[in-house]
Amino acid sequence: MAEYRVIPEGTVTSPKGFLAAGIYAGLKVFGEEKRDLGLLFSEELCDAAALFTSNEIKGAHVVLGQQRIQGKKLQAVVVNSGSANTCVGEQGLVDATEMTELAAKKLGVLAGHVIAASTGVIGVELPMALIRQGVEKMELSKEGGHELARAIMTTDTHPKELAIALEIEGKEVTIGGIAKGSGMIHPNMATLLCFLTTDASIEADFLHEALKEAVDASLNMVTVDSDTSPNDTVVIMANGRAGNERLKKGALGADIFQEALAELCIHLAEEIARDGEGASKLIKVGVEGAESLADARAAALTVAGSALVKTAVYGNDPNWGRIIAALGRSGARVDESQITLYINEFCAMDKGLPVSFYKEAAVQAMNRPEIYIRVLLHLGDASATAWSCDLSQEYVTINSAYTT
Amino acid sequence: MAEYRVIPEGTVTSPKGFLAAGIYAGLKVFGEEKRDLGLLFSEELCDAAALFTSNEIKGAHVVLGQQRIQGKKLQAVVVNSGSANTCVGEQGLVDATEMTELAAKKLGVLAGHVIAASTGVIGVELPMALIRQGVEKMELSKEGGHELARAIMTTDTHPKELAIALEIEGKEVTIGGIAKGSGMIHPNMATLLCFLTTDASIEADFLHEALKEAVDASLNMVTVDSDTSPNDTVVIMANGRAGNERLKKGALGADIFQEALAELCIHLAEEIARDGEGASKLIKVGVEGAESLADARAAALTVAGSALVKTAVYGNDPNWGRIIAALGRSGARVDESQITLYINEFCAMDKGLPVSFYKEAAVQAMNRPEIYIRVLLHLGDASATAWSCDLSQEYVTINSAYTT
Repeated sequence: MAEYRVIPEGTVTSPKGFLAAGIYAGLKVFGEEKRDLGLLFSEELCDAAALFTSNEIKGAHVVLGQQRIQGKKLQAVVVNSGSANTCVGEQGLVDATEMTELAAKKLGVLAGHVIAASTGVIGVELPMALIRQGVEKMELSKEGGHELARAIMTTDTHPKELAIALEIEGKEVTIGGIAKGSGMIHPNMATLLCFLTTDASIEADFLHEALKEAVDASLNMVTVDSDTSPNDTVVIMANGRAGNERLKKGALGADIFQEALAELCIHLAEEIARDGEGASKLIKVGVEGAESLADARAAALTVAGSALVKTAVYGNDPNWGRIIAALGRSGARVDESQITLYINEFCAMDKGLPVSFYKEAAVQAMNRPEIYIRVLLHLGDASATAWSCDLSQEYVTINSAYTT
Repeated sequence: MAEYRVIPEGTVTSPKGFLAAGIYAGLKVFGEEKRDLGLLFSEELCDAAALFTSNEIKGAHVVLGQQRIQGKKLQAVVVNSGSANTCVGEQGLVDATEMTELAAKKLGVLAGHVIAASTGVIGVELPMALIRQGVEKMELSKEGGHELARAIMTTDTHPKELAIALEIEGKEVTIGGIAKGSGMIHPNMATLLCFLTTDASIEADFLHEALKEAVDASLNMVTVDSDTSPNDTVVIMANGRAGNERLKKGALGADIFQEALAELCIHLAEEIARDGEGASKLIKVGVEGAESLADARAAALTVAGSALVKTAVYGNDPNWGRIIAALGRSGARVDESQITLYINEFCAMDKGLPVSFYKEAAVQAMNRPEIYIRVLLHLGDASATAWSCDLSQEYVTINSAYTT
């Protein structure tokens, strides 16, 4: 575990030199707390890295972002919720490009150093007139991270934000992040949008590597509905304001930064799962003793994503056969006679044999806001954790009337 | 299309020489129409083939059945619902074997020619005392197929049965089948249990090939919840009573039989999807113009299985972006600019561009018991169909309190 402290009320603008804004620009139905357009800005040009969706269908901002990140330098992100700017033909790329140009002009930076991001309904063109007006009137501030965290929400019930401070070779370094999730959430990437900032000085290639490793163990291990979005985007920007000696692979402090970044991403991943559409419980699946990391991850994610496991958790139903059935179809090597299974503190199966239990006690053990499903495969040394949420009637209600 | 006629009230005992029974033996909570133990019997020893689950965790009857089918000869099936006889340690195989011995003794056949099958809750031992009594008191009859179809039901709301007659080289041949589905339904196999019979004379290797081909295009293209059961079993028995010249690969009439068998399996597949847990609508996904059959099948199944597509269908929500997003993550090659998409008769996307539509008309087009999602990829000649059902609050209700 990396040593770090959580910054009270921390957010994506907690690291030095980052400002942000989030406003209501009319892209969604109005609500007191609603925001739908946002800006994230670094006073210095940043080393940057980004990861995008693995979906063959890609939002226009993903296509543009994949080009822009080639330069490994970014200074701003402009983002909207309400429309995904996806499946709208060539207009999509025209509009995403204009978004970055509008932001660049306002901020006095190069458009090539701006990334755009969109989330919302697919197949609807961006209302560019509203976005032009909106970018114009946004006011950046040091507290703007909180508003930006709201501006990226769709069916999320609350913003997800965190900032942590740690010491690297005598210098205090801060890492901040915000994310949104809720629906169409499955790796890779497991989040629609996640923006990370740090005032550490970091070489871009190491930054990319550290981001990939952190995301693989966190956001890519979240599943709400097994549906991978065409818009998923994670961006990290490092502006060097902390004054530390530049971090690169193998440098002193590189491991500390890597671990702290992973911890921050795990926190955001857990928050996304906890706030999955219609969720009443967080499900955490830990698989230990797998033959390989790939096996451990596949097993954990398959259990976490099973509709039958998710409904059983919702109903406090200790129907653990569903967990074993999901393990069996995960593609991971499993040996029934070696499996030990816990649901919270209660053991359901021990080395392949069902454990007699008092059903009411098991039901009670499941009637909690967090359910920890722990699987011991006893085949090797690899382990992994996946995050999900229960599947409730409310999930169906939310998703059966999303656009109508 | 093969030429055949549907037999009124046809079932698995419609082919000559097959008898069956289904009774209530006390394995499930009592209900007027409830059956939980059944027998299927052929007066002659049959050429036989079977396919089993791809889940790494296998029910005891699957392990036993995989051994028994090596001999390519069967004369009876004994089956129970209520307990899956899965994940109960070594007792599972002991009990499955005893079930076949009880049936063999009653019927005066070899236990090696009997297959057992179980479906229900995982992790609970079979109540063998009830099964011993039950096998004893079953009475076989020509109409018993209808009772047997009930005996394999779990959360199914009605039995699935069909028999068809066709002519092969001047001889009338009958094929009958029953199946159960409802929950934990996803290839491979897409059905928990399916029993097929025919009075045609067929060489066992060709029978296996014909079964595999039929199941790949039908039962393996059904998904209710993306959860593959450890117990899935399809068995076909051919007793030769029709007196046709023995069918083998390339023989006259082999194609006709193959096609008719596939049609029968498609009917059962569609019935399983229509009766998925909590379903109010059948979803049929046709993918055309894919580069390969594997691509077409992956694309169709991924769309059919998407929780977001299924909830949108439930709510008559023409949120077609979810269909495109599912296509994009299916693993099939897709080119956004080439995709044309219909939901029933209404075109949502034409060669990559959204088609403006009157939303109320689209909502109305979706307010029907069958939704046909038709995707034209325009990349090749391969096509495939998948079947699913909508995802309703009722699904959650059913599955959140299954064992409690």
